[in-house]
Formats: sequence, C-alpha cells, structure tokens
Amino acid sequence: MDILVINCGSSSLKYQLIDMNGENVLAKGIVERIGIDGSRIKHEPHNSEKIVIEEPIKNHKEALKMVVDAITNSEYGVIESMDQISAVGHRVVHGGEDFSKSVIIDDKVMDALNRNIELAPLHNPPNIIGIEACKEIMPNVPMVAVFDTAFHQTLPEENYIYAIPYEYYEKYKIRRYGFHGTSHKYVAIRTAEILNKQLSDLNAITCHLGNGASITAIKSGISIDTSMGFTPLEGLAMGTRSGNIDPAIIPFLMKKENMSFDDVNDVLNKKSGVLGVSGISSDFRDLEDEAEKGNKRAKLALNLFANRVVKYISAYASELGRVDAIVFTAGVGENSPLIREMVCENLGILGVKIDKNVNDFKGKERMISTDDSKVKVLVVPTNEELMIARETVELVK
Amino acid sequence: MDILVINCGSSSLKYQLIDMNGENVLAKGIVERIGIDGSRIKHEPHNSEKIVIEEPIKNHKEALKMVVDAITNSEYGVIESMDQISAVGHRVVHGGEDFSKSVIIDDKVMDALNRNIELAPLHNPPNIIGIEACKEIMPNVPMVAVFDTAFHQTLPEENYIYAIPYEYYEKYKIRRYGFHGTSHKYVAIRTAEILNKQLSDLNAITCHLGNGASITAIKSGISIDTSMGFTPLEGLAMGTRSGNIDPAIIPFLMKKENMSFDDVNDVLNKKSGVLGVSGISSDFRDLEDEAEKGNKRAKLALNLFANRVVKYISAYASELGRVDAIVFTAGVGENSPLIREMVCENLGILGVKIDKNVNDFKGKERMISTDDSKVKVLVVPTNEELMIARETVELVK
Repeated sequence: MDILVINCGSSSLKYQLIDMNGENVLAKGIVERIGIDGSRIKHEPHNSEKIVIEEPIKNHKEALKMVVDAITNSEYGVIESMDQISAVGHRVVHGGEDFSKSVIIDDKVMDALNRNIELAPLHNPPNIIGIEACKEIMPNVPMVAVFDTAFHQTLPEENYIYAIPYEYYEKYKIRRYGFHGTSHKYVAIRTAEILNKQLSDLNAITCHLGNGASITAIKSGISIDTSMGFTPLEGLAMGTRSGNIDPAIIPFLMKKENMSFDDVNDVLNKKSGVLGVSGISSDFRDLEDEAEKGNKRAKLALNLFANRVVKYISAYASELGRVDAIVFTAGVGENSPLIREMVCENLGILGVKIDKNVNDFKGKERMISTDDSKVKVLVVPTNEELMIARETVELVK
Repeated sequence: MDILVINCGSSSLKYQLIDMNGENVLAKGIVERIGIDGSRIKHEPHNSEKIVIEEPIKNHKEALKMVVDAITNSEYGVIESMDQISAVGHRVVHGGEDFSKSVIIDDKVMDALNRNIELAPLHNPPNIIGIEACKEIMPNVPMVAVFDTAFHQTLPEENYIYAIPYEYYEKYKIRRYGFHGTSHKYVAIRTAEILNKQLSDLNAITCHLGNGASITAIKSGISIDTSMGFTPLEGLAMGTRSGNIDPAIIPFLMKKENMSFDDVNDVLNKKSGVLGVSGISSDFRDLEDEAEKGNKRAKLALNLFANRVVKYISAYASELGRVDAIVFTAGVGENSPLIREMVCENLGILGVKIDKNVNDFKGKERMISTDDSKVKVLVVPTNEELMIARETVELVK
C-alpha cells in the first residue's frame, strides 16, 4: 500500500511517497517558490540520483502535477501509475477543537478546516489549497487530514485555559492548542517500543527542539501539557520566536516603536528567539561555533535556550509524578550533543545522568542515560511523514 | 530608635511606626481616598483603640501631616514629638537597574527614581510624591528608599534577558526585574533563622501568594530567578492578573475587541487571573467556598492557580539543584491550607511531604512538612514593613 504524504506551505509543497509494506520511502522531495520566480522541484527517488527541474510553477495544482509526473516518470519515477497511490495523507496545522484525531476528508471536514483559518491564518490556507489540488488531480483517491493539534486535545482544562476572562474562550476559542503533535506522538510511540512498554504505560517528556520548539508531558501515553499554546509562539525560546515574555512588553513595545499588530507579530515570530538574543543567527550550529570562539551573546542565547528547556522538563516532571523517559528529537534535539548536555546536567534533582561519551553523536536513535540514571534519556529522530502515512492507512484500510 | 515606614499609593498612604529596640510596632494605619470625596485616616496605636478620622485630605502632604499628628497626639499618640522619629523608610516599587540595594535618599537618588517612572508609571509617581511630602514636613530626618526590585538584581543574565531582539534591552531596558523583593528577602532571612542556617547557605523557593503573586528561587541566599518580569503582570495566575499567556493572544485580542494599549493592559491586569477564569471573585476565600458548593469555574480557577505554582516550584528546584525549603507567605500562602495542600501534593517527585493536620491553620509561622520530607515546607508570615525598617536602620545608623 503506497501512501503519498503532502505538506503544503504558502509557496512550497513537501511530499513523500511511502510503501507501507515495510514503511520504506520510495521517493521524497519539495516543490519550492510556487508562484514566485525561480520555482523548481527537487525530487529524490530511493533508487537513483536526485533530480532538480526548474520551470515556472504557477500554483499548488501545477506543483502537485509535477510531483505526480516525477514519481510516475518512466526514467526516475518509483511507481508506474498514479493508480498505485492508495491514499493521500495531508499535514494540517490547526484542527481547533473540532479534531482530536486524524479524519478522512469529506465536505464536513473541509467546512471545519475553513472555520479554523482564523486560528492559523498563515498555515491552514495553504494546507487547504493542497487538499483542493489533490481533489482535482486524484478525485478518486481517499484523503486523510492529520493535525498538528490533535494529539494535544487530551489536555486537562486547567492546562488549556488561560487566566484571562473566560468569555474570550467562549467567544474566540482562545485556549492552549499545542502543536508538533504528530512529532510528539511519533517519538512517544517509538520510545514505548524501545523501552518495551505499552504506550498506555508510558510517562515521558518529549522535547521537539528544532527551529520551532515545544515540549510535551505525556502521561499514560496521552498529552497532558505542552509548551506551545494558542499559537506556536508560546513556550520555549526558539530559532526566531520569543516564546514566553511578560505580556505587558507587547503594548509597551507597540507604543514605543509605533508598531502595528502585524509588526509586533513579525518581531516576536521572526526576529526574536536565539536570533534576537545573539544578533547572529537562528541556527544553533552557528551559535555553538561563535560561542566557542568567545562570543558572549551567542553563549547567552544558548544558555537561555537550554535553561528554559530545563524549566519545562522539571515542571512537567511534577505534573507527571513519575517520568520514565526524557526524549530529544528534531533538528537541535537530534543533532546537538552540547544542548542535550547543557539540559541534562541541570536535571540532577530528577536523578538524570547521561554518559557524555555516549551523547557525543548526531542524528541517530540512542539511549544516552547511564544505567544508574533514575530517568531514561533518549534521542529518537522524529518522522512526521511516516506518522501521517500510518494514520492515513489506519483510516482508509 | 523609632522608624517610620511609608508606602504611598496613588490615593493612599500606609504607615507603620516601629520601635527598633525589640522591633515593636508602636502604631500603624492608612490614609485612604486622598484627593477623593470621603477621605479618612485609620490609625491603630499599639496601646489603645483604633481611631478613624474622616475629613477632606487634599494631597499626600496633608495626609502625612495627619499621620504625624496622629502618632504624636496627646490622647492616642504613641510618641511625644516628631523629633523621636530617627528615620523614614519608603517603599519604592521600581529601582530599575540603578539600585541593587536600599539607599539613603539624596538628589541623585531622586533623579534616578524619576528616570524609572517609565518602567512603573502607576507605582513610582506616588512613591515619589510621598518622599517629597516627607522632605517638606520633616526636612531634617534621613530617608531611605527600599525597592521591590532590588533583591532580584542578582539574577543571572540568562534569567533576566528575554528572547526578543537584544536592542530592546539596550534601548528601553526591557528585561526581567522581578517584584515583591522585600517580602522574598524577609521570609528567606526568617527561614534561615528557623532552619538554623546562615542565609548564605540557604537554598529556598519562596512563594509570595497574595492578590499579586510571585515565586523566587534563592540560591545561597541570593535571588537567581523570579516569576514576575518586566512588570508585575508576568508569571503566576493571580487575583486579577493573567500571568503568562501566549504573547500572540494580545494582538489577536486587540484586533478582535478593538482595544487600545490601555484597554488590553486593563483587561490583563484587572479583569483576568482567577477572577477572569471563575467569573466570581479574585478573593480565594470566595473561590474556595464556591468550589466546595460545586461551582466548576471556581474549582477550575483554583486548580489552574495551584498547578502554575507547582510548575514554578519544580522549575526552580532544578535551577537550584538542592532545595532546603519551600516557603509559603502573603495572604493566600499564609491563610489557605487548601492551596498549600493542592500545591504540595503535586510535588511528590521532589520528595515533598506535608502533614495535612499540621497544615490546617491560618496566619502563623509553622513547619508543615513531615520529618521524612526531603524538603522542608514552611509557612512564614511576611513583614515587608519590618524589613524596610531594618534596612533603614542599617543605612542611617
């Protein structure tokens, strides 16, 4: 059973074609700069060289056509015809309170997606455009929506309600939703397998540390708290996002700098985080290099980032009561031994001990805690596409 | 040595006259509704009945004259003449980065206080007016400013810098300042005494839970982290303040509700917190009563409040590495056995155990942890006025 996984951004379309017998990726790629000069497709078949085709691509429908052409191409394709695609799994950012699980896409689902645009004005519209394009090109293939928010719909009320007038929840649905749910769920399932436990017996703290970053407290296999909130801005300091700040800073700054709503959103989402603190880069590799050379603000940015991770892990440990595992994943979590070490060395009160030598690696699945650590610490590379494909199979089979 | 302690609000003046030989309060009181219809002074001498005098009081200078008249009155006064006042200690909310300690007030200090008005536009101006009034009425009495922010000037950089563009710290001094410093310091000192430790050996987490609420991590006697930030809005959910929210909620709400800067500050400071969540009251006694009667939103407000306290304590425990004591103080901390219990029962991972019977009391100094608790848990009533008087004596003697 071959599943096509689609992740549409405003000017991009990422895809993977996965053979679910064995969970092998047949091909993956990205269409970039859709509707912009210089548009192109980068296509990576599992069995041959990467292909790059540059040509004008006006919209997501054209982009999807190129994807289908690429994967069925007689020379570098991986399947013979589109009919071999059993189903399409779409990543959708915001399911609001409508979706606590993945769903087969029908007209009702489309209505709900459109209703939730207000909650994710930047992300849901391209997700919807991608679904519409698929409907036109593959009208008879079943499609599934997999939501970034769904895994967190199990949060208890005291963790999703903000301490603002309750009417804003009733009127505008302002509440904590949480994001990266597909990733947190994937690494939780994998962690349960590694520890030889039922997922429903697993208490874990999963740290998705990438350019966007969030931490989730998973109790008996279920998300009970997560650091991102109403939007992906809340929580940890990130590559370019501020995470938590004193809310009073916003009106202060808007007044001082004569900023509009969009301006302040732009600063907090795109110019803040470790980029804003360091003044150098949002890329942790750059920051580690500069910190090693003695740059104080790069060092400050790393310290600040690690310190906030420590605080969330510790807070969630108390919420869980018992912690079986702390799990690092995503770009920084998988590839930065330094950040993992900076975090774990400040978790002594929880009985966390890691082996620095074992920790000195990138991008693999590995246990880094010592035998006498009270809590297991693991690195588990995330795989959101595979998770989307699995949920898709589950629903269409 | 008799010290007059003054705490000026925009339309109020609280005072205590303390005999520092034995630290006894000779008289205390409040002048209310200054410059408003119905102004009055409530004066409580230590040795006789409370006096209430209602008469028009135009400004803080007139208010202070009434205070001096009351404490030197031949009938219900407590000293014979103003000359017996050795010094005046003023509570000042915001010392910015200028003051990491209490100081004797001179012209330079007045300049700095005026410079910091921008950081505390609601609080510093009445503090300054109170100082000016004292200068006029008691020109020869030395005066000391004791700052709410000073105790937290020891925070390390990664705890006071926000993950926003660094230039906002340089241009506008946007950073974490922290508040309630005088209270956190007082209970830390008292806790060290109770535990028979040097303050410099004490690692404690002090929870000042009142209508305003903040938690401080004290390492080796020094504040290293605190939950309030650039303003007293950040951190815990409070009586009427939101504490932490997703920053993106603010522009969203301003747009939706067509709010100005002042409107949104007003909502987040005065209509949020447990009042906003419950829709009932900012007073925890009301919420406990209503929750017991089955009101779900009152219960939610209490759960949400306690849960955030748990998370801060746990985060700070990791920052400290070793915790000798968790200390509850201020209105709710001293008087709500329920909140203390709700917090402590979720700190099991830190080895915290309290005795529920011992915990069932209000407003006294008491150890509530069991003998086998890994961390001592105490209730220590705060006394900011005494702390101000002590710092004043220290500087003028």
